[in-house]
Amino acid sequence: MKRYLFRNDYSFGAHPKVMDAVCAVNLEGNWGYGDDGYTARAKERIREVCGCPDAMVEFLVGGTQTNVVACAFLLQPWQSVICPTSGHLNGHEVGAFEATGHKIIPVEVGGDGKITPEMLPPVLEWHQDPHLTQPKLVYISNATENGAVYTKAELTALSDFCRKNGLLLFVDGARLGAALTSPANDLTLPEFARLVDAFYIGGTKNGAMFGEALVITRPELTDGFFRMKKRMGAVMEKGWIQGVTFLTLFGEDELYFSMARQGNEMAARLQDGLRAKGWTLWVESPTNQVFAVIPNEVKARVDEVCDCEVWCPYDEDHTVIRFVTCFHTTQADVDGLLSALPNL
Amino acid sequence: MKRYLFRNDYSFGAHPKVMDAVCAVNLEGNWGYGDDGYTARAKERIREVCGCPDAMVEFLVGGTQTNVVACAFLLQPWQSVICPTSGHLNGHEVGAFEATGHKIIPVEVGGDGKITPEMLPPVLEWHQDPHLTQPKLVYISNATENGAVYTKAELTALSDFCRKNGLLLFVDGARLGAALTSPANDLTLPEFARLVDAFYIGGTKNGAMFGEALVITRPELTDGFFRMKKRMGAVMEKGWIQGVTFLTLFGEDELYFSMARQGNEMAARLQDGLRAKGWTLWVESPTNQVFAVIPNEVKARVDEVCDCEVWCPYDEDHTVIRFVTCFHTTQADVDGLLSALPNL
Amino acid sequence: MKRYLFRNDYSFGAHPKVMDAVCAVNLEGNWGYGDDGYTARAKERIREVCGCPDAMVEFLVGGTQTNVVACAFLLQPWQSVICPTSGHLNGHEVGAFEATGHKIIPVEVGGDGKITPEMLPPVLEWHQDPHLTQPKLVYISNATENGAVYTKAELTALSDFCRKNGLLLFVDGARLGAALTSPANDLTLPEFARLVDAFYIGGTKNGAMFGEALVITRPELTDGFFRMKKRMGAVMEKGWIQGVTFLTLFGEDELYFSMARQGNEMAARLQDGLRAKGWTLWVESPTNQVFAVIPNEVKARVDEVCDCEVWCPYDEDHTVIRFVTCFHTTQADVDGLLSALPNL
Amino acid sequence: MKRYLFRNDYSFGAHPKVMDAVCAVNLEGNWGYGDDGYTARAKERIREVCGCPDAMVEFLVGGTQTNVVACAFLLQPWQSVICPTSGHLNGHEVGAFEATGHKIIPVEVGGDGKITPEMLPPVLEWHQDPHLTQPKLVYISNATENGAVYTKAELTALSDFCRKNGLLLFVDGARLGAALTSPANDLTLPEFARLVDAFYIGGTKNGAMFGEALVITRPELTDGFFRMKKRMGAVMEKGWIQGVTFLTLFGEDELYFSMARQGNEMAARLQDGLRAKGWTLWVESPTNQVFAVIPNEVKARVDEVCDCEVWCPYDEDHTVIRFVTCFHTTQADVDGLLSALPNL
Repeated sequence: MKRYLFRNDYSFGAHPKVMDAVCAVNLEGNWGYGDDGYTARAKERIREVCGCPDAMVEFLVGGTQTNVVACAFLLQPWQSVICPTSGHLNGHEVGAFEATGHKIIPVEVGGDGKITPEMLPPVLEWHQDPHLTQPKLVYISNATENGAVYTKAELTALSDFCRKNGLLLFVDGARLGAALTSPANDLTLPEFARLVDAFYIGGTKNGAMFGEALVITRPELTDGFFRMKKRMGAVMEKGWIQGVTFLTLFGEDELYFSMARQGNEMAARLQDGLRAKGWTLWVESPTNQVFAVIPNEVKARVDEVCDCEVWCPYDEDHTVIRFVTCFHTTQADVDGLLSALPNL
Repeated sequence: MKRYLFRNDYSFGAHPKVMDAVCAVNLEGNWGYGDDGYTARAKERIREVCGCPDAMVEFLVGGTQTNVVACAFLLQPWQSVICPTSGHLNGHEVGAFEATGHKIIPVEVGGDGKITPEMLPPVLEWHQDPHLTQPKLVYISNATENGAVYTKAELTALSDFCRKNGLLLFVDGARLGAALTSPANDLTLPEFARLVDAFYIGGTKNGAMFGEALVITRPELTDGFFRMKKRMGAVMEKGWIQGVTFLTLFGEDELYFSMARQGNEMAARLQDGLRAKGWTLWVESPTNQVFAVIPNEVKARVDEVCDCEVWCPYDEDHTVIRFVTCFHTTQADVDGLLSALPNL
Repeated sequence: MKRYLFRNDYSFGAHPKVMDAVCAVNLEGNWGYGDDGYTARAKERIREVCGCPDAMVEFLVGGTQTNVVACAFLLQPWQSVICPTSGHLNGHEVGAFEATGHKIIPVEVGGDGKITPEMLPPVLEWHQDPHLTQPKLVYISNATENGAVYTKAELTALSDFCRKNGLLLFVDGARLGAALTSPANDLTLPEFARLVDAFYIGGTKNGAMFGEALVITRPELTDGFFRMKKRMGAVMEKGWIQGVTFLTLFGEDELYFSMARQGNEMAARLQDGLRAKGWTLWVESPTNQVFAVIPNEVKARVDEVCDCEVWCPYDEDHTVIRFVTCFHTTQADVDGLLSALPNL
Repeated sequence: MKRYLFRNDYSFGAHPKVMDAVCAVNLEGNWGYGDDGYTARAKERIREVCGCPDAMVEFLVGGTQTNVVACAFLLQPWQSVICPTSGHLNGHEVGAFEATGHKIIPVEVGGDGKITPEMLPPVLEWHQDPHLTQPKLVYISNATENGAVYTKAELTALSDFCRKNGLLLFVDGARLGAALTSPANDLTLPEFARLVDAFYIGGTKNGAMFGEALVITRPELTDGFFRMKKRMGAVMEKGWIQGVTFLTLFGEDELYFSMARQGNEMAARLQDGLRAKGWTLWVESPTNQVFAVIPNEVKARVDEVCDCEVWCPYDEDHTVIRFVTCFHTTQADVDGLLSALPNL
């Protein structure tokens, strides 16, 4: 491995507080499958921080699994998902959602990766034809795959449109912590939760060993969920690990948010530093992903210094690369990386 | 919770050595998705202990997931699985395997839960009709759901039959440790591996936080497996946790086997003790599950003392209950339970 | 082919009246996909003869397709079907239903192939465990695969049980004509329809070239059906052929019932004749399938005379064979067959 | 209905010769499921006209069903289909293909609806990432949804690219007759068949009541197909109807081609006539679909005169409409329509 590891936000394990909490209960003995007290309390705590006393909360293992189980659960077989072309569900999950028998309707979006209400009426009109699937759920990510954050006005407009048109609104929250602690954000978690029908709070990318907390805010939509989860191979035998993890993430110290804030701040510092070194940013990201456009021949020099990812080609001569920070990224890491990278 | 926890073998977390190993690497930084050195070395180590230098080894999260991903991967859509009626794949997974579009052909088996070659020809003959599925894979568990163990002679006979008839042989090894360390066992792990086409080494029920190691012994059957695993939502982002876990389980101290042996010995002690107290055993189990037949009215007194599971009704007046031991069960636990239980 | 064709009830094409009606409209020009006047009127006519003015009626092509589309449509992914082990859905459709992701719970039934309410409580009780599928639909056939017919009392009892227990009752009506015109039947079509939630009126096995009329009697269960049908590849482009077919089958002359009665009467004549020749019947069938037990060595002589099917082994020395009659079977066919068969 | 029916090429039933042939064998008695002599001879005849003596030929009922069964059969679960955005499989089948668990990778194509080899390398490169599906099959239509025809040079180039890159090439031949008899075509049926791995010869849109003949030209790819077909509910009980139909279509008079040629000629006449009346064509179609761009306010006047389809919006003020001809369209129909339509 390289000295600087900015490849993604799952390069490190759990925050030490999470690890300690899991170790503390390791051999005390608990019922399996989430039928334990930690899990019950963690669910209750998540309902509380979301301001959704009636919501269903269930823990799953990873992001792809959570997206797939939740979206398939919420749809009838002939119903489809509207998803940004760049959405994780569409682009990065080996057809895991199609494997449940559902079609994705990809929507071309801008560089921020966001869906806006204006994009939807043509899709709905076109799909009134019963020889096409019935679009029923809008899938978005917050933060988006490109690091952008939905504002309160944007999410409200999208939510209103969905509710008027009988569409469910689902948010992939793999980086929800980064979104809600971003300077670009003006939503509280309860405000956010009120605007959507289902979402998950990503643990894996923010300080858990693993684990995502799926929240379905409308109880009338939740019948049968546990069986669906089991049917998809998504029930952990030692479920209390997820319970203990989320109890720790949402303890009084608000660890979940402080970790996310740390990631965001380090990304901002890196972004500023790159700009100062003459680098071109692909997008201005207010969260923990930083995207830079570099001449192709510079890539090898970057690789000598750090682990990061090629995101996509930019043009024949340039490439977009991505640096990701996380709870474990320090100022020293960022400053070290910056001084090791070439000026451009 | 009750004083004595014999509900199952996933009531406790990981063995402290496993926990320590996971904690030791927690923040060192690693590539995700299993592209790390621990995972590579763990795969190599498992090939070594199995005596299968060319086998594919992949880590998954839990038993249902592993059964489903592996069996679906090995079959064409019109092919089916022959499975004991009592097999976990058939009976306890909310149709997770059927969710992949495959039919299970249940076979009635004896009280030991084993498939023998004699049971198969009628199934094969009946299914020559192309209006029926093509049976292609025989699913067995070792130890079986009822705690029994396949002998070398039995497994050889079944393996021979399968190979002569173009059937794949898959073993659910959720309790493979218990099987291979049982006094009833006469198979080494390499001998076992040579007789089957695919199996998994269960970690969850034997000292891991989670994790199963799938082994496909025939490399010509493995093309595309990673994509299949991802498509089923079964790729862990922080995959090195599985790697570190299995490296520890199969370290020089053979922790995997010593833990399993401990579970088996405690179960034998419990079984002997129950017999001495006048209890009736449902089956003689040589592994870590103990099944007893009790009068229905005794159930409430058992419940006061310990956590165990109702297995099935026996007759109108009696019930079969199950006690399960594990690496963490001590002589004191067993003796304490025995003295707390009533004589019958 | 042999002189006498008793292999099944789809050995002949359509009744000449059906053929004439299809030919008459062949080149007149119609909208596709069932959006034509014949289809509309046929649906209306079927609602009328069923006494279900609010029912949904949709035409499909064949029996397997209809069973699969209907049952999958009526269930959530984690819900399963209770089906006789001998039911067509379970035994003869290459896992077509499992291909939709659902599990079948097979129930052992008697020689008549019928499910009775007493068989269901143990299944329901066992499946209260959320680690198992939720049984939601009871699949039966009328006539059954073994030729038996549900009486009004039997179907009422089963219907009552299902309604009390939140189960849907679906009837595979591939041979519904044979059932309702059997001397063993005491149900009218409207009485029958009132007792069940969904069923189909089989055309293929009773005088149509192809085509089944699916009836879902409860309109609140029908939202989205056309899309589901299309998704399963079951929408005919020239759908008016199905409309014209069913308009003819249920015209004023009640062709559907007179054809079925003819099949039943010919089967009864054959059954009587076989008995008179010393043959042993496997079951007494009141519909258009006749099952006989013959010594294995007689099979070759039967094969010289006629086409019929081996149904199942009876014992080491005997085999069950099946003769099927249909609308096109004449007294001369039956008497000719009888005189050509050996006495036993 | 309107006087002129140009809505699609399945508005009329079968050619009288087909109808007569089906009626002639209606009551002669045949084995079911395609196990009859007509079907066997029709398969042989299709192998002969395709110049593929080793090909597998199987009959299915409709276009969606054939596309879905064939493509799902040819792929492993993690493999995907590359398909024009406008391809029928992607756009008009209610997710029927996704219902089999496979992802479609849509490719933006030009107005002719064709895929060219240049479009494919970026898709293949992007999908080398094992977190994405493996593209394995290229789906095209000939004629395309927009009426265009692949030339020998174009299909050869695409075929070469696919073979070099391990991709299967499948052709949706719903309108294969129109393609191969188009003035724009320079391929014989055997030349066409040699260039592709699988295709179907569409009957429904060219003179059959229903029925498509699937041809898989490489026998090593065909194991298990019948079971797959049955599993998808696509096996007709009275399969000889399909056999007789295709025997008639490919009899000595080459009815299949003469019918298609009639459709094409009538479309050309219509296209010329519209141009003469000042209409704007959306594309120049060399087959049996004619696309015209009309001012929105003219639509109502067109609707008074004939049945045709709105194809897509053109701009705010204009709409693309489609007229389709078929074997049954006469010069009188075309000339009558032309005189009834307004000049523009």
